[in-house]
Amino acid sequence: MINAFHAGDDPLVRVSAEIPSSKETILIAGFPGSGLVGSIAVQYLVEALSFTHIGNIASPLLPAVSLATAGLAQAPLRLYEKGRLLVVLSDVPVSDEGSCTIPSRILEWLCARTVVTEIILIGGVVTGGDGERVFGVATTSEGIEKIKSSCQILPALNITGITGGFLTEACLRNIPATGFLVETNFDVDPRASAAGLSVISSIYGLALDTEPLIAQADSIEPMLQKLAEDVKKSDVPPTAFDEDIMYG
Amino acid sequence: MINAFHAGDDPLVRVSAEIPSSKETILIAGFPGSGLVGSIAVQYLVEALSFTHIGNIASPLLPAVSLATAGLAQAPLRLYEKGRLLVVLSDVPVSDEGSCTIPSRILEWLCARTVVTEIILIGGVVTGGDGERVFGVATTSEGIEKIKSSCQILPALNITGITGGFLTEACLRNIPATGFLVETNFDVDPRASAAGLSVISSIYGLALDTEPLIAQADSIEPMLQKLAEDVKKSDVPPTAFDEDIMYG
Amino acid sequence: MINAFHAGDDPLVRVSAEIPSSKETILIAGFPGSGLVGSIAVQYLVEALSFTHIGNIASPLLPAVSLATAGLAQAPLRLYEKGRLLVVLSDVPVSDEGSCTIPSRILEWLCARTVVTEIILIGGVVTGGDGERVFGVATTSEGIEKIKSSCQILPALNITGITGGFLTEACLRNIPATGFLVETNFDVDPRASAAGLSVISSIYGLALDTEPLIAQADSIEPMLQKLAEDVKKSDVPPTAFDEDIMYG
Amino acid sequence: MINAFHAGDDPLVRVSAEIPSSKETILIAGFPGSGLVGSIAVQYLVEALSFTHIGNIASPLLPAVSLATAGLAQAPLRLYEKGRLLVVLSDVPVSDEGSCTIPSRILEWLCARTVVTEIILIGGVVTGGDGERVFGVATTSEGIEKIKSSCQILPALNITGITGGFLTEACLRNIPATGFLVETNFDVDPRASAAGLSVISSIYGLALDTEPLIAQADSIEPMLQKLAEDVKKSDVPPTAFDEDIMYG
Amino acid sequence: MINAFHAGDDPLVRVSAEIPSSKETILIAGFPGSGLVGSIAVQYLVEALSFTHIGNIASPLLPAVSLATAGLAQAPLRLYEKGRLLVVLSDVPVSDEGSCTIPSRILEWLCARTVVTEIILIGGVVTGGDGERVFGVATTSEGIEKIKSSCQILPALNITGITGGFLTEACLRNIPATGFLVETNFDVDPRASAAGLSVISSIYGLALDTEPLIAQADSIEPMLQKLAEDVKKSDVPPTAFDEDIMYG
Repeated sequence: MINAFHAGDDPLVRVSAEIPSSKETILIAGFPGSGLVGSIAVQYLVEALSFTHIGNIASPLLPAVSLATAGLAQAPLRLYEKGRLLVVLSDVPVSDEGSCTIPSRILEWLCARTVVTEIILIGGVVTGGDGERVFGVATTSEGIEKIKSSCQILPALNITGITGGFLTEACLRNIPATGFLVETNFDVDPRASAAGLSVISSIYGLALDTEPLIAQADSIEPMLQKLAEDVKKSDVPPTAFDEDIMYG
Repeated sequence: MINAFHAGDDPLVRVSAEIPSSKETILIAGFPGSGLVGSIAVQYLVEALSFTHIGNIASPLLPAVSLATAGLAQAPLRLYEKGRLLVVLSDVPVSDEGSCTIPSRILEWLCARTVVTEIILIGGVVTGGDGERVFGVATTSEGIEKIKSSCQILPALNITGITGGFLTEACLRNIPATGFLVETNFDVDPRASAAGLSVISSIYGLALDTEPLIAQADSIEPMLQKLAEDVKKSDVPPTAFDEDIMYG
Repeated sequence: MINAFHAGDDPLVRVSAEIPSSKETILIAGFPGSGLVGSIAVQYLVEALSFTHIGNIASPLLPAVSLATAGLAQAPLRLYEKGRLLVVLSDVPVSDEGSCTIPSRILEWLCARTVVTEIILIGGVVTGGDGERVFGVATTSEGIEKIKSSCQILPALNITGITGGFLTEACLRNIPATGFLVETNFDVDPRASAAGLSVISSIYGLALDTEPLIAQADSIEPMLQKLAEDVKKSDVPPTAFDEDIMYG
Repeated sequence: MINAFHAGDDPLVRVSAEIPSSKETILIAGFPGSGLVGSIAVQYLVEALSFTHIGNIASPLLPAVSLATAGLAQAPLRLYEKGRLLVVLSDVPVSDEGSCTIPSRILEWLCARTVVTEIILIGGVVTGGDGERVFGVATTSEGIEKIKSSCQILPALNITGITGGFLTEACLRNIPATGFLVETNFDVDPRASAAGLSVISSIYGLALDTEPLIAQADSIEPMLQKLAEDVKKSDVPPTAFDEDIMYG
Repeated sequence: MINAFHAGDDPLVRVSAEIPSSKETILIAGFPGSGLVGSIAVQYLVEALSFTHIGNIASPLLPAVSLATAGLAQAPLRLYEKGRLLVVLSDVPVSDEGSCTIPSRILEWLCARTVVTEIILIGGVVTGGDGERVFGVATTSEGIEKIKSSCQILPALNITGITGGFLTEACLRNIPATGFLVETNFDVDPRASAAGLSVISSIYGLALDTEPLIAQADSIEPMLQKLAEDVKKSDVPPTAFDEDIMYG
């Protein structure tokens, strides 16, 4: 209904969305970061599988930007659903200041309305290497068991920014989470997004065809260059890794 | 009545205004930004159609400035009405910090007192081109249908600052909104304001004559130069576009 | 009574003062700014007409300074009264951050205890000219009528800092306010203060003799030089004007 | 009792202390500033007269530092008492940000538990002169009468930082306060502290022997050099004076 | 249970943990700082004595980072227990801004659920010397008695950062605390961690073998180099000392 505000009272992060249809849900999140890997991946996922847009999120911790695509102006941070799958998708980079608070408030809103049984995160990691290896992490040993045959497990991997914030929040809420950090060395890297999506699709049985994403890579890369520059100018830290690091 | 404060308790944004006379209203907003397009347009609209000043808005997020015109000192952010039309008008640029919070609190105040059925936004966009093309966006497909024959729809347009903030807030509150971003390449550009107003007038049937605005362009441009410099010195980001950008 | 705190709960601005004796009051305010015009004027007014000190104001938005004159250490922001007249006086420049909040909270405190029927503001404006012209503004047409024969009305005048903040707050509270901005081109300018006070005295019938202020100008100017330097180092913006500016 | 927290709810400044034994108390405060005059003085006073440590104060507005002396680690801001005398003592410089809030919250805590009948402040003032003159200020005329034969009264003296903040807070709470600013031109100046203490001792009858402080001056000066450097690096402004300044 | 959030309402620091099994507990804390002495020590302690991970802590005052070790992604600040021993361990440096608030909120959470009878802190101190001397501090004379034969007591030692914040918080809550600052002059110094742990083990009877830590020093040092660089880039101040400093 017009003017009715379906959001909490919290002024820092406001969620205006329909209650997810499924009582148990899996949340998938990807954000602009190294290679824009996370945001390209979830944007493609949402379009390829025809997710339904169920809501919007606003916060003074985000840049005040509305990206209009073919004339349709949207909130920069949005929620989608399809069956048990929920997606949170961002058109804008999230600053360090928001990287703890935004995951915390989104999950607070969701967990009051649905049982989030799992969280899946996708992002990029700068390696300096050639390939598009997919490095996996999980917040539980069961999670590591589930993913370890489909991706590489590094001795140590430091996951920064809002992806790190979501993993920490998942730990606090005892929601099992897995994260897929795809090797990227480009500003805009749809091939890395496709590689990550393939791994997620195979583990979670999403039946997602990533061929079209790879096919359109050459054409969409220049189009996303501006967002990539925004990410570089923002204070979003790149997730880095060192295969030799082992802690403790 | 003297001293009685007709405002909410919120210290961040305080609205002191009469309740809009109409139960259903359309909100029109324009702010200083590229070419001062938005603020010149709504200022002209208010004067040409003899709107009534119904209230004032104060916020520590705005610069503490009162602009006195012919001796009349006013609050920098003001509300006007005429029939079903409401106008929010600013003499000062709104910083990034206020671009999310100020639209949110203004709409919170309004929506508790009137049903805002639509929001119309006007602003400038720097293109580097020659013309005064008007690019339209809308938060719904119906909105795009309504405007698409009167303006240009771009594949992608990034709307920044408080105009972007109003579009996001409109999405959160499910209030249909349209935005008209007029091509501008000058510090002060009343011709672009006139072009935008013409489009809005024809779509919404405002019967507004923009000829006088164009006629006085030469004389008012130097007068507005100082505000334009304030905008440049502020952190208000210019809305930019790239006709080649297509996202996702 | 000792230790009893006569102030509100608000931690941002705390007022500790006796309730004004008069049920209806006129508030006069002047602050350090260009030429120190406002603060010299109200300081002289308070001493020449033997106002009574009725209270003090503290805020973390103000510099933590106590100026002791002949050994008497005082709060930097103080309230005085004489009959229906209230004066708010500051020894310290007010930063941009406080320019909205401090007028708002002072008037909130006052309006709960007395009916403020009018606000009179005095300050300096840098013109680059020679004279000590007094430019007047008012928040109502009646106010402009009342002052226009005693001072100059400019087509456009931008009033910045806490003086602008007081004008905006007066608009929000529907309290008629007048402002007198005196031309000044010096760091310390008691002659401009005297010119402004003369205009205010004649309009409001204060029967104030400003001759002593002019007489002592030569002697007090060097003494106030340090405060003037503090003002320059602070972020208090100078109120500027351009006789050619006409808005809208 | 272990773990029991004897403090208020306020997160900005938390006081954990025993209730002062005396129903009426005099508060003496000195802080690191020019010449470390204030902190050396109250530290010496507390040791020479064998005050009892009654509590600690913590605040995010203070640097997170614990100074351990002979192995004893303490909170940086502490309360002591002896009979009717209370002392507040700081090992760390207080930033501008805390200079209003910390005196306000300390007095709020104290005034709810004892009647503070008087506040005595000691600090340093940089003059460029040779001597160790003691300049006195007071918040009441009675206070000036009481001190004027024991110290010098300047026409104007600007007291900055937390000492200025305590004077302002004393004005707001109507607690008579006196301040003793001792001429200092060194980084560490126990001789100035002794000069100030002598004046305070004679006015308030403390029977304090300052000879030992002077005697150990040569040995302790190098030891305090590091704290002096911290003060210089902090944003604590030096209290300055100009014998020629006379305000208004 | 999934989604259930076992944390307080406080948005600044949120603790999600099981209630400690023991009614009386001793808290051991170590953080990244000079030589990473504290974090290497408690990390080793937790692994060598097979502590149980009981909870996680999140705060916008911490960098949003999740460090995944062998694929296991964890919250950066965690709680462990073994019998009466509790450990708080951090993978990330804590900024000055968090150094007061984080100890305060962790102890607030703990003290509502268990009686913390003692706090033991370990960290590094840069001396410029050769050895790995262990300097001890305590918040009570009894504490100094207990530790003084096992470590060195300096005339003065300034303990900065979150270790200083924990000592101050221990003073406010009247919880006896001891601190062991180990001489270190390297970016990564497991030998200093081992030296500190040996002292703690002997005083508190932990029966901890630190030989393996020393044995693996050569191999783990390069691995921890990145965290050491993060510490250097953060605003965590090094704890410094001067054997000649004696205060007051």
